[in-house]
Amino acid sequence: MSDPQPTRRATVPAMEERLGQPIPVLDHGFVRVVDYMGDDAAIVQAARVSYGAGTKTARDDRGLIRYLMRHWHSTPFEMCEIKLHVKLPVFVARQWIRHRTANVNEYSARYSILDREFYTPAPEHLAAQSSLNNQGRGESLPPEEAERVLRILRDDASRAYDHYEAMLSTEGQTGLARELARMTLPASIYTQWYWKVDLHNLFHFLRLRADPHAQYEIRVYAKAICDITRTWVPFAWEAFEDYRLNAVTFSRQGMDALRRMLAGETVTQENSGMSKGEWREFRTLLEGAGSPAA
Amino acid sequence: MSDPQPTRRATVPAMEERLGQPIPVLDHGFVRVVDYMGDDAAIVQAARVSYGAGTKTARDDRGLIRYLMRHWHSTPFEMCEIKLHVKLPVFVARQWIRHRTANVNEYSARYSILDREFYTPAPEHLAAQSSLNNQGRGESLPPEEAERVLRILRDDASRAYDHYEAMLSTEGQTGLARELARMTLPASIYTQWYWKVDLHNLFHFLRLRADPHAQYEIRVYAKAICDITRTWVPFAWEAFEDYRLNAVTFSRQGMDALRRMLAGETVTQENSGMSKGEWREFRTLLEGAGSPAA
Amino acid sequence: MSDPQPTRRATVPAMEERLGQPIPVLDHGFVRVVDYMGDDAAIVQAARVSYGAGTKTARDDRGLIRYLMRHWHSTPFEMCEIKLHVKLPVFVARQWIRHRTANVNEYSARYSILDREFYTPAPEHLAAQSSLNNQGRGESLPPEEAERVLRILRDDASRAYDHYEAMLSTEGQTGLARELARMTLPASIYTQWYWKVDLHNLFHFLRLRADPHAQYEIRVYAKAICDITRTWVPFAWEAFEDYRLNAVTFSRQGMDALRRMLAGETVTQENSGMSKGEWREFRTLLEGAGSPAA
Amino acid sequence: MSDPQPTRRATVPAMEERLGQPIPVLDHGFVRVVDYMGDDAAIVQAARVSYGAGTKTARDDRGLIRYLMRHWHSTPFEMCEIKLHVKLPVFVARQWIRHRTANVNEYSARYSILDREFYTPAPEHLAAQSSLNNQGRGESLPPEEAERVLRILRDDASRAYDHYEAMLSTEGQTGLARELARMTLPASIYTQWYWKVDLHNLFHFLRLRADPHAQYEIRVYAKAICDITRTWVPFAWEAFEDYRLNAVTFSRQGMDALRRMLAGETVTQENSGMSKGEWREFRTLLEGAGSPAA
Repeated sequence: MSDPQPTRRATVPAMEERLGQPIPVLDHGFVRVVDYMGDDAAIVQAARVSYGAGTKTARDDRGLIRYLMRHWHSTPFEMCEIKLHVKLPVFVARQWIRHRTANVNEYSARYSILDREFYTPAPEHLAAQSSLNNQGRGESLPPEEAERVLRILRDDASRAYDHYEAMLSTEGQTGLARELARMTLPASIYTQWYWKVDLHNLFHFLRLRADPHAQYEIRVYAKAICDITRTWVPFAWEAFEDYRLNAVTFSRQGMDALRRMLAGETVTQENSGMSKGEWREFRTLLEGAGSPAA
Repeated sequence: MSDPQPTRRATVPAMEERLGQPIPVLDHGFVRVVDYMGDDAAIVQAARVSYGAGTKTARDDRGLIRYLMRHWHSTPFEMCEIKLHVKLPVFVARQWIRHRTANVNEYSARYSILDREFYTPAPEHLAAQSSLNNQGRGESLPPEEAERVLRILRDDASRAYDHYEAMLSTEGQTGLARELARMTLPASIYTQWYWKVDLHNLFHFLRLRADPHAQYEIRVYAKAICDITRTWVPFAWEAFEDYRLNAVTFSRQGMDALRRMLAGETVTQENSGMSKGEWREFRTLLEGAGSPAA
Repeated sequence: MSDPQPTRRATVPAMEERLGQPIPVLDHGFVRVVDYMGDDAAIVQAARVSYGAGTKTARDDRGLIRYLMRHWHSTPFEMCEIKLHVKLPVFVARQWIRHRTANVNEYSARYSILDREFYTPAPEHLAAQSSLNNQGRGESLPPEEAERVLRILRDDASRAYDHYEAMLSTEGQTGLARELARMTLPASIYTQWYWKVDLHNLFHFLRLRADPHAQYEIRVYAKAICDITRTWVPFAWEAFEDYRLNAVTFSRQGMDALRRMLAGETVTQENSGMSKGEWREFRTLLEGAGSPAA
Repeated sequence: MSDPQPTRRATVPAMEERLGQPIPVLDHGFVRVVDYMGDDAAIVQAARVSYGAGTKTARDDRGLIRYLMRHWHSTPFEMCEIKLHVKLPVFVARQWIRHRTANVNEYSARYSILDREFYTPAPEHLAAQSSLNNQGRGESLPPEEAERVLRILRDDASRAYDHYEAMLSTEGQTGLARELARMTLPASIYTQWYWKVDLHNLFHFLRLRADPHAQYEIRVYAKAICDITRTWVPFAWEAFEDYRLNAVTFSRQGMDALRRMLAGETVTQENSGMSKGEWREFRTLLEGAGSPAA
């Protein structure tokens, strides 16, 4: 980061503290803020351009931001932008990149040589395939199986990197092109990128990736970014928590059941019109264990 | 704009001067910079993440930016972002909005009442339909015809606005909803919006809209933004001028003709393999009258 | 439309009936299907590529589509595409175009002369500004006021069109360029476009624009497209109705209140932690009058 | 593919032949057409909506398509859409996915188990790092070095897959979750996806990826898709070849040099105003060895 300079742009003192500071994630990864544009007031400012005089007196900033979030107004949130530098394993990068509405500059293994850094899970994160869910993890592996797995992961990564270096080497041989040699490297290797996104699309990313159903290894990045976002735009973050992260959506059938229950009726899966899977999800939602988003 | 505050983000002192200052465009319009993210160095910084050590020593910043532009690397330019507040006639807004890769918050005529401000061209900009081009303008109108046109434009706009107000009024009547009353307003009325875009997409917009074939009324906005961009990212701007704005693209047939001409052959439309239209455009390009982009 | 030809692409016989048939909307507008790609089975096919063997036996097509919709899987729905030809008033086009994830070819008033066709509301759709909502309409205008409004709208449109023609005319004068003359035309004039969009983004459009809070004049287009979509992908449509159109989202505070109510507690605005506006919306949702999406 | 059914949609008989037929690419990959929307006539049809009566008589279809391509009109080409099923190595998929304006459904290694299929280059494609270019390949490796490299690539892939299976296995152990076990697999493993894109964005992809500077392993996929595109929209393809693939863009400095050369002057790097790199590229362009796009 540069030395402090005066600016008349929207500035968030608490974000200035965070600029350039890497937040460690996983064993070798990080997220750090490179730049940001806008703040809570910039959301309000854009909304007031759109909705004109009508919004000027009716609500204070926090109330207006909550109103915008509740009513699915997306464009005022697009007026804020953040740029992050992220170091992450390749298999996490492959999930992340599916969010297309962002700008990305990734380290190129065609041009440059990757570092010898691989993700090795902590033993407690080594888990079995979920039996309930085709996707996702179940219970932790027993200690000796976990140890076996870790040994495999470490040995494979280490041997692959040795071979990568051996193929690239120009000592006593021609040396293979980088764009080819890289193909022996496993998906656990770390890459890095600059990732720039507007706040609306960031919230969408966070809703999917900070969710308990997201893979642990991307969720920890999402959590670190949640933390950054709370610092950056505290009113928008609070509204996002109340109206998205902790909100619950009921289907038509769910609403029917709910209204009958509130009227004192006893509703069961059989008389609800829901399938067993839907009924189970409905009960979970009522009991408050979070949203079923995949 | 707020009072100056210290920031460690990339800062361009010359842009700080421009922040919030409206640049007048047309009779009632303007462009003003609300915020910006990044500078020339931020482009270089992102490119160095992508291309790694390979780029570190080979080139200085200006050289690297020129290389990126020349070789159509778009992602480093996406790392800069600008937010503009623009006031513009509705028919210009309708062309502008076709560029979809930007964020927009427009003044809403459902919520709010539009101001009595209409675009009236200067007499010298009143021109005939082009006879060469289905699109675009030819020669200026003779003075008395221009005067007639201006009277029509002014009278229609003024009457339409009177009627707009009359329909909205709640004095002695119910008053029509804003979302309906607006439909009598002509396309010359001014609207305004916040428009936020990354530098790569901004360059694309400028290439199409600062072009001589663009309609005059949007071109003057593009020119004002060219000016801002030159202040903001001077190296990238220079590269954009050299490799895009003032660059010329020749078709396969054009290159064949060119190579034959350089070898001393006399090439005519007949022996060039080009249609008459293509040949005319080819001659124009060689003579330097700018690109034929529509 | 062409004569029938054999194809091995996914084909929906009921859509073939609709191809090229304009569905009238408003007084001079229409929506007609120009082309479509994919069907319910194409959604399932894409999902099975993504989720592999795991999905092959567990669920039938309808069940899988419902699962995908319920769990916010968007990419399988992006595998279907539809192309519509729409004729619509300019002020409706201006709202519509804000949905950026679609392809558009609009009639160009720079190249061509617009037709003399303007939207005039039916008297029963002339309504007052809503007093509850800064946006939107309230009660209908009394008959004599409605008549006055209609006269203004018709006269202004007619006079504007006369002037448009007068300025364009090359009889006895030079004639003004089309790109300039158009600026006197009101927002009630009809334009037309080809609009092409994938099913996921179409659903997003329909959720916002078929909503009771959308302006009537765009809502009727959305309704016509709902009808087309039901014919095209009946399973996906049903899932969209159950999990989006007729679904209800409760905030964190709403869920707290709901759980307390189900436990037999009496919850009031005062003890709910909600603002008055939120509480009113919460009550409305429970009573089933649809979603409050703006 | 389904049995032939009658349709009134735009149909290309030669594409019907290709539907579902895999074109082999690399050692285990393929591209096959799943569906398509539109044809050359659909491009023209959309352009005629946009440009109205002006275009109706002036040009035949081929001429109009060439005009649109030459003048950078993109929206009519967006009216055609294609859906491909592609099987490709992960490191190719990682380059490909950077093109964000497409719809993708990729095989999920969280849900499903990947097959034992890895890319092994043919010996003649094993090349050294380019000495001219930080990116890309130079000469082929000598036979014994190539053999050594192939042995490494095959052994690593095979061992990694054995370990993948061993970690997943539930025989005599709990078995690791798929989302974790996959991380030991190298970037040479094959994945597959459905990829859907409009013709304008497809052309953009092909321009970058069918270029000689693209990595060989993605270029062969681009070439297969070029072939498909030529079948699908022959006029648009021809225009794309003439005005993009085989077109050449000269910078401002390049145009100055060119005009001086045509006027008979002797231009050298020293008096051209170009850097050495630019001058070398300029000479290459004049001599016809293709574009320098990276």
